[in-house]
Amino acid sequence: MKISIERGTLLKAVAQAQSVVERRNTIPILANVLIEAEGDTASFRATDLDIEVVDKAPAQVERAGATTVAATTLHEIVRKLPDGALVTLTADPAAGRLTVEAGRSNFSLATLPKEDFPVMASSEYQSNFSANAAVLRRLFDKSKFAISTEETRYYLNGVYMHVTEADGQKVLRCVATDGHRLARIDADLPAGAEDMPGVIVPRKTVGELRKLLDDDEQDIAVSVSETKVRFATPTITLTSKVIDGTFPDYSRVIPQNNTRRLEVDAADFAKAVDRVATVSSERSRAVKLQLDEDRLVLSVNAPDSGAAEEELAVAYADERLEIGFNAKYLLEIASQVDRENAVFLFNSSGDPTLMREGNDLSAVYVVMPMRV
Amino acid sequence: MKISIERGTLLKAVAQAQSVVERRNTIPILANVLIEAEGDTASFRATDLDIEVVDKAPAQVERAGATTVAATTLHEIVRKLPDGALVTLTADPAAGRLTVEAGRSNFSLATLPKEDFPVMASSEYQSNFSANAAVLRRLFDKSKFAISTEETRYYLNGVYMHVTEADGQKVLRCVATDGHRLARIDADLPAGAEDMPGVIVPRKTVGELRKLLDDDEQDIAVSVSETKVRFATPTITLTSKVIDGTFPDYSRVIPQNNTRRLEVDAADFAKAVDRVATVSSERSRAVKLQLDEDRLVLSVNAPDSGAAEEELAVAYADERLEIGFNAKYLLEIASQVDRENAVFLFNSSGDPTLMREGNDLSAVYVVMPMRV
Repeated sequence: MKISIERGTLLKAVAQAQSVVERRNTIPILANVLIEAEGDTASFRATDLDIEVVDKAPAQVERAGATTVAATTLHEIVRKLPDGALVTLTADPAAGRLTVEAGRSNFSLATLPKEDFPVMASSEYQSNFSANAAVLRRLFDKSKFAISTEETRYYLNGVYMHVTEADGQKVLRCVATDGHRLARIDADLPAGAEDMPGVIVPRKTVGELRKLLDDDEQDIAVSVSETKVRFATPTITLTSKVIDGTFPDYSRVIPQNNTRRLEVDAADFAKAVDRVATVSSERSRAVKLQLDEDRLVLSVNAPDSGAAEEELAVAYADERLEIGFNAKYLLEIASQVDRENAVFLFNSSGDPTLMREGNDLSAVYVVMPMRV
Repeated sequence: MKISIERGTLLKAVAQAQSVVERRNTIPILANVLIEAEGDTASFRATDLDIEVVDKAPAQVERAGATTVAATTLHEIVRKLPDGALVTLTADPAAGRLTVEAGRSNFSLATLPKEDFPVMASSEYQSNFSANAAVLRRLFDKSKFAISTEETRYYLNGVYMHVTEADGQKVLRCVATDGHRLARIDADLPAGAEDMPGVIVPRKTVGELRKLLDDDEQDIAVSVSETKVRFATPTITLTSKVIDGTFPDYSRVIPQNNTRRLEVDAADFAKAVDRVATVSSERSRAVKLQLDEDRLVLSVNAPDSGAAEEELAVAYADERLEIGFNAKYLLEIASQVDRENAVFLFNSSGDPTLMREGNDLSAVYVVMPMRV
């Protein structure tokens, strides 16, 4: 194999690959990126056995072929090469080396045989459809904060993407929860997605996927089976196993009859929560909300270090209510609000609370109260 | 005590104080800042028993007095208050509380009696002089990277500031070394500094001092005794114990007779060193320099992962030389060069190497080679 490729193009392809590679590998080949060159394209493939990413880049292919080389080292080298350099990669299978040349720099890297590289088996996908990058970004960005990190509840370690009905319309829905809070985000169902099986997309895949979704105009080809999900742009293909488990029936925890309605500027609210939480040194900073007519008092009481109180002018017309929350959870859901006011719907101080943006029902958050 | 103070002014004063406070304190009062109000000034004092910083800020003092409160908490609160807010601090000694009010925010913080706060004893200073901030910044910025982190060689854990003679001129000199590399930086001797005793300024003090030196125009009042050093702007006074030890005779390790002269663009050199070092995964990345007529070849050989080589066009007219260095050390000294080319003076591959900027003898670096 011998190819030449522009440094910026190479850097982008290798960066995507090396981010999938796990830092600590007991299987040496998994630290490597598989480079395959043919026609006028070089492809860069990396995997951790659960996720595989393939990045295609235009290249001058002088000699077709393939080899594998340490992803992190190659990435570091290319990153440090001067912008605009033309990089030549030459594999010497006999010596087990890949030469990287650019200007007066010359690197020789150890390779492993391409045959040892575990290429993910291709599968049959039950559902193939196209979704706009901005739509997918919203679905995952607004739900991922609620993904559980408890490994024993592995079926909560991802975002549950599925098709369902909301207000009589079919929607593509993403849900994540850790038992303390929940995010439920809907989007119009893309054409062709009707038969998509529900899948739990793992946390790491959600992170890798995010890098494909920066361009608002881009359409993403989505393929889903019971065991795998694939997201593809014209140059990058991300394939991932999905979590083998059953996502719990989340609809039961979304309160339907919360009637006490608080409307508040989300940014002001978040800043006030952040300020009052300062006096507490504990991990789970409990913030008390006292609601009275058009008035919200946020307070924290930490016997050792002090107390804090802040008043906000809000819209609230129901009976008095005192309710406590983990400050971190309040901050996280308030920061999901982009445009309008945050609307909270309470029941009693012991019941889950619902939050949404204005009257928009396509993004709904639930947070459990805590005793204060 | 009751004072009102503009949020930005307060934030600056408290930020400086809390950075001196150690994160983990076994003595509770050391986590606190001592606030003293009198006339139209509030002062904020913090200490770790080795360093003391006092920051004076203009304030509306309604009731003079003093109290102490957790520095980190106060800093966090003030940081989160809206810009431009007027902050009122009211001490209630009976309740042992300090109230912090701004707009609709209200905080009540636990205090400790001001009598418990360990104020550093004032001393007689043998030498008092004024030095320009930019001059001090250069002395410490260019030397501090070489400070040793080995606690057993405590006398190397700081910058040795002293008066000496260079080329028949009295100079103010800063030296730091860890045994592997050394930095020696000179400045014109400020008037009045002639009798200054040599002192070893501890690493943490060098870091805190840096915050006083941002304004090029500022003059810094420097006071030095055998045991203490003080740096003061009109608003901030930083007092520190100096390291009780003898700095070694560094002049012996500065080579005088190195004649093989390499001149190279410092930025190009640093980038090349950084690139070739990429292939080595070891901590101490050894880089080999091969010098021949107007030609420098940098190379790294890491049997497991690969090899790298890069050629640079340089000015070199002496005999061939092969010499190895720790890549990190080369990068650090090369990054001290601001304006001109880096000039290296070698003797043999086993002897210390000298580096300076062009023909400027006021900043000289020494680095020990390693076998490659």
